[in-house]
Amino acid sequence: MGDLYWPGDERAGTLLSDEALVTAMVAVEQAWLDALAAAGLTTSMPLAAPSVDDLTAGAESGGNPVIGLVPLLRRQSPWAHRGLTSQDVLDSALMLCLREVADRVTDELRAQVSSLVTLVAAHRSSLMVGRTLAQHAVPVTFGLKAAGWLTGVLDAAATLGALSFPAQLGGAAGTLSAAAELSDDPVPLSARAAVALGLEARLPWHTSRRPVTAIGDALVACTDAFGRVATDVATLSRPEIGEVAEAAGGGSSTMPQKRNPVLSVLIRRAAITTPGLAATLHTAAALAGDERPDGPWHAEWATLRDLGRRTVVAASQTAELLAGLRVDAARMAATAEAAHAELTAERDAIAGFTDRAPGTDDYLGATDAIIDGVLGRATDFLETA
Amino acid sequence: MGDLYWPGDERAGTLLSDEALVTAMVAVEQAWLDALAAAGLTTSMPLAAPSVDDLTAGAESGGNPVIGLVPLLRRQSPWAHRGLTSQDVLDSALMLCLREVADRVTDELRAQVSSLVTLVAAHRSSLMVGRTLAQHAVPVTFGLKAAGWLTGVLDAAATLGALSFPAQLGGAAGTLSAAAELSDDPVPLSARAAVALGLEARLPWHTSRRPVTAIGDALVACTDAFGRVATDVATLSRPEIGEVAEAAGGGSSTMPQKRNPVLSVLIRRAAITTPGLAATLHTAAALAGDERPDGPWHAEWATLRDLGRRTVVAASQTAELLAGLRVDAARMAATAEAAHAELTAERDAIAGFTDRAPGTDDYLGATDAIIDGVLGRATDFLETA
Amino acid sequence: MGDLYWPGDERAGTLLSDEALVTAMVAVEQAWLDALAAAGLTTSMPLAAPSVDDLTAGAESGGNPVIGLVPLLRRQSPWAHRGLTSQDVLDSALMLCLREVADRVTDELRAQVSSLVTLVAAHRSSLMVGRTLAQHAVPVTFGLKAAGWLTGVLDAAATLGALSFPAQLGGAAGTLSAAAELSDDPVPLSARAAVALGLEARLPWHTSRRPVTAIGDALVACTDAFGRVATDVATLSRPEIGEVAEAAGGGSSTMPQKRNPVLSVLIRRAAITTPGLAATLHTAAALAGDERPDGPWHAEWATLRDLGRRTVVAASQTAELLAGLRVDAARMAATAEAAHAELTAERDAIAGFTDRAPGTDDYLGATDAIIDGVLGRATDFLETA
Amino acid sequence: MGDLYWPGDERAGTLLSDEALVTAMVAVEQAWLDALAAAGLTTSMPLAAPSVDDLTAGAESGGNPVIGLVPLLRRQSPWAHRGLTSQDVLDSALMLCLREVADRVTDELRAQVSSLVTLVAAHRSSLMVGRTLAQHAVPVTFGLKAAGWLTGVLDAAATLGALSFPAQLGGAAGTLSAAAELSDDPVPLSARAAVALGLEARLPWHTSRRPVTAIGDALVACTDAFGRVATDVATLSRPEIGEVAEAAGGGSSTMPQKRNPVLSVLIRRAAITTPGLAATLHTAAALAGDERPDGPWHAEWATLRDLGRRTVVAASQTAELLAGLRVDAARMAATAEAAHAELTAERDAIAGFTDRAPGTDDYLGATDAIIDGVLGRATDFLETA
Repeated sequence: MGDLYWPGDERAGTLLSDEALVTAMVAVEQAWLDALAAAGLTTSMPLAAPSVDDLTAGAESGGNPVIGLVPLLRRQSPWAHRGLTSQDVLDSALMLCLREVADRVTDELRAQVSSLVTLVAAHRSSLMVGRTLAQHAVPVTFGLKAAGWLTGVLDAAATLGALSFPAQLGGAAGTLSAAAELSDDPVPLSARAAVALGLEARLPWHTSRRPVTAIGDALVACTDAFGRVATDVATLSRPEIGEVAEAAGGGSSTMPQKRNPVLSVLIRRAAITTPGLAATLHTAAALAGDERPDGPWHAEWATLRDLGRRTVVAASQTAELLAGLRVDAARMAATAEAAHAELTAERDAIAGFTDRAPGTDDYLGATDAIIDGVLGRATDFLETA
Repeated sequence: MGDLYWPGDERAGTLLSDEALVTAMVAVEQAWLDALAAAGLTTSMPLAAPSVDDLTAGAESGGNPVIGLVPLLRRQSPWAHRGLTSQDVLDSALMLCLREVADRVTDELRAQVSSLVTLVAAHRSSLMVGRTLAQHAVPVTFGLKAAGWLTGVLDAAATLGALSFPAQLGGAAGTLSAAAELSDDPVPLSARAAVALGLEARLPWHTSRRPVTAIGDALVACTDAFGRVATDVATLSRPEIGEVAEAAGGGSSTMPQKRNPVLSVLIRRAAITTPGLAATLHTAAALAGDERPDGPWHAEWATLRDLGRRTVVAASQTAELLAGLRVDAARMAATAEAAHAELTAERDAIAGFTDRAPGTDDYLGATDAIIDGVLGRATDFLETA
Repeated sequence: MGDLYWPGDERAGTLLSDEALVTAMVAVEQAWLDALAAAGLTTSMPLAAPSVDDLTAGAESGGNPVIGLVPLLRRQSPWAHRGLTSQDVLDSALMLCLREVADRVTDELRAQVSSLVTLVAAHRSSLMVGRTLAQHAVPVTFGLKAAGWLTGVLDAAATLGALSFPAQLGGAAGTLSAAAELSDDPVPLSARAAVALGLEARLPWHTSRRPVTAIGDALVACTDAFGRVATDVATLSRPEIGEVAEAAGGGSSTMPQKRNPVLSVLIRRAAITTPGLAATLHTAAALAGDERPDGPWHAEWATLRDLGRRTVVAASQTAELLAGLRVDAARMAATAEAAHAELTAERDAIAGFTDRAPGTDDYLGATDAIIDGVLGRATDFLETA
Repeated sequence: MGDLYWPGDERAGTLLSDEALVTAMVAVEQAWLDALAAAGLTTSMPLAAPSVDDLTAGAESGGNPVIGLVPLLRRQSPWAHRGLTSQDVLDSALMLCLREVADRVTDELRAQVSSLVTLVAAHRSSLMVGRTLAQHAVPVTFGLKAAGWLTGVLDAAATLGALSFPAQLGGAAGTLSAAAELSDDPVPLSARAAVALGLEARLPWHTSRRPVTAIGDALVACTDAFGRVATDVATLSRPEIGEVAEAAGGGSSTMPQKRNPVLSVLIRRAAITTPGLAATLHTAAALAGDERPDGPWHAEWATLRDLGRRTVVAASQTAELLAGLRVDAARMAATAEAAHAELTAERDAIAGFTDRAPGTDDYLGATDAIIDGVLGRATDFLETA
């Protein structure tokens, strides 16, 4: 893979590539053929996958890449695809591909959580300026900031972990009518194929697209969590602030001194583009009329591909960013010290109100307890994910 | 309420109105004041809500409507708002308002499910043409189609039911530092206020916005489910198809004969606008830098209001649409009969392949079993929701 | 007006309010009645506008607010609305409202340009650090930066200035058939009414929505230009950078020392929400089937209202921001001096390559010529706009 | 090319492919080298383009594909890229690619206009039902409907024709400072290179992104126009309506009788996905801070690629759709005849009001004059485009 328009795309490997889709489509056809065989209708046999080029040619005239696949498979077994419709194959294949994406993103989230736990522990007490509306507010520690990032990552992981990846096996209009011509009991046939694919057995959902939009929403929840970290890192690595730095900054084509926060930049790029992609999945879902719609379904495929790959790339970049993040605790402390009067103005106002001396010098409140709470969530996640 | 630009807006009543927001903000301040009182710091007293106009004036210069609220409350109790930040009050207040929205939408979903169960039962065997890519495909029944709508509604309800509505009580930078000046143990203080509000107690999430984006995603999942029903109804009520009709069509300003599927039209309107709103919440989440961001947070408020109210209106309209839907089973049957040869072409091709006579005349496959499965989900929902 | 969810909303006054829409709808009906009268069909008379409440009630059942308007007007003149359809009235009325919005935004753009010209002139030579990817790059002047802002504003103004605001006067299906029953020559009738309204006479465009999407695109081009200025101001007013400041920062509900860049924050808020609104107009345009579509048209109204008002508010806030912007040229110079070695690293690399001494000490290249070019555009705009 | 996730992608050929981008980037570097040579600084020489793979590898670490390009070119001429920054090369290269896209889309628009003129002329008087809100309204002719499509296409063409494609040649922070080290007069150097590339000479616009968003808006205006045609064709080719049909319908993987309106489906697919892409360009523009932003710029590249290619594919499909559209004027007439009473109810109501006999039997109003007006625009376009 690799994409000059999306530097870093190669991090997603072959996930949701054309080849991966062909492989997944054939896996779906194979599982169905095996189910037909298990029902005594035919003898199973391994189906060989055609090349991408063999399918590209016919994809437009039929409107989807399954149209060209079927005759190629039927040369191998005349029972191939009997009882299915093209949407069954494509929806199920995409679910296989998306589950792989989710698995890969989960791996990256786990790595991020580990790095963040380390950062939080190391900087639990590293005093720094808390900033709101781009201005100095009250003191925080870098451990607390990292715990906030961690909260976002754990929230994303929880969303991703709650997803289901259903098989679609319903026939032309979701009635399993063709399958019923072949077998007296088509519902178990469908369930058997779903199990073989490791997908959830679910009643036909050709025009009930929540499984698709839920995946889109979860992937965007991930890039939201990454984008927020990257926004902070890009800001805090400004020379005038200088509190963090990426391990290896990117260079310039002309300025020899530049060390750009290039991972942060590329992560933010992803986070800016994904909300619109997930929204497109919702628009498509809302327009999913009839027993298969006239365009909205077709709008999902590339949208899911782009959303999936970009999330993987950004997840990997965020994991790398966090693993190598350089934290300048001394500079944080120096800036906080210099701003001490401002940062404690709220505290002093409270003291004035209560007519008592300020209770704390550092004015960090419940920072420790909050950090402990987040670390507890992280431990649970790492133990169970 | 009422909005000439959004006919039907009055269905949402005062949900997420300016008045509702003021009431909710004061409720948050009250819960906090009560918590301070319970900790022995002051004596509680009921806080009176100011008028909307009193708050509008100062909202811009402070950047949010809490800035103007605080001095008005402190005239009542000088302890009001001590320990909080404006984002605490606004986030928690919005959560109160959004929980009401979710409750109302859930009521409407329940009504929709009931109507759909009735439609499914009544038309379990009402033969009709199944349509894919706008063309005749294979037979279905109207009961199956309604079961598909029901699946969408149940999926939306499941998403909505999984939401949490957390309180935000963290102070200026999420450290509870001001509260800690007042009380040795500010975390229980915060938890007590959350409980009093009926909101989830949660560690500060000022820049971890998944609670907000999850609500946005769930509301759009609802309008997706409604939009898909409305798309079907608008199509099937075309005079040339004439299989369903709204109970009371809308009139025209000039054509006396017109009976427009006006609920479907207005539901589709909502479904077209909400995906972009939910996407805006994600963009805001991804840009949530520092301890409070410089714009993204502010972009959430009106977006949530519009998304919330539109979902309520569309939910109510969909409930009304389904409750009164007129189904012309005779015309469905006539069209299906006339198209019998086409609709069974797939069946005959299978018969040709298997060299057996077609197994079924109606070619409805597992329609009954699928309907039973969906009805089972509906029953579970109605019993537990 | 005023909106607690959108602080500053009152800057848009009554533009695109419910009342403004009623007034505009009646103006359209009046122009049509006058045209009928001019054709000798009836006697003209001034039509009184009903109240908003009178129209809200009936708007939902008819699907739009014109349905309820017509009988109220016909009590005044039975010839009211004869020959029109509700979409004629609503589309034309919205165009009247949007033209007012464009006029107001243009006024604000002119004020922005004036302020920017002053800033550019005052700081043509105020040395500052140029920043790319959040890092120091090469030197610029603040005059050049302001000239870049000015370029954005002038581009937005050019887009806005190229808009047309057409009347919609075509009857139920865009054939002027009802009007043709009343008059032998309905096209001039339609043109006369358009002229009276000050709108462009245009062939019916009920489902050709480029006039609407073009307005949406232009408004977003404005908020893009504002958002970019606000992004710079928010960054440059960070305490660690401190190169600019808003004239009057916003306060905090709890931290007495805070001076927040509140205009920048609120402008950025707008810029985050408007792209999704303009996209909704495009989605609606693409789905505009038949002679009037079943939902997409209805999705436009509130979207245009929100887009229009938010652009006005942000335009006004940006004008205020620029008029009062405080520029700390001494701090800019000090930071640039301290970074001199870095900022001239590119220059020295070139010197190394060419084996000549660096040509310039300030390394500002064609800054002066570029500024002159932008100021020339600004002068042209101020003279002709 | 070819993309299994976007059937028909091959219609866009190599436009905006990785290879096309490399070619365009080298063309920009060549034009600049030639300009340096023309200024007497070096001797020009033809630069050879590296392979895509050579650039992919380094694109991520530098953040963009130019970083890896420069050393490869400098092996050929040490003067390559002297005075430029990577954004200059990438922005200008994308403008070259996008101009090709616009040219190709314009060709397709011209073909569409020709087909539509033929359809309008052939069916100027082909009576059909006019439909609003999915119901029968008043009579139209198919010529009028096609004239409405034509209006949309002409509006899109006008938008596309008004675009400019500027070169970006400003150096690291848009000051031409590096170029100024090489040449006393860098602005003409920049203008010369722009002219050589056939791009508009324009002052640096690194963070003034209206040229980019204007292109995005224009491309979406095109897919809007196509989507609306496709929406009509999909609806009117429903078997129950049967008024139009695509020349060659698409087949099914399982139903032998199916003739799907596959071009319409694929065009609608595109129209559903493009608004979100154009919105992303606006979001990026609004966030374009500093002298080069930290993510928003990077979000543009793939977005423009996808938007550009999808518009070309949809333009080509729409041209094919229109060239081969089958119109069943007899069925249109029969349906209109059967609905005569409904379709003339408005006319009869007017007759009742005016107390005169209905003026026309066909009730087509100014249909002819409107058609003539649109055909006039088409003729102007075909003569001048």
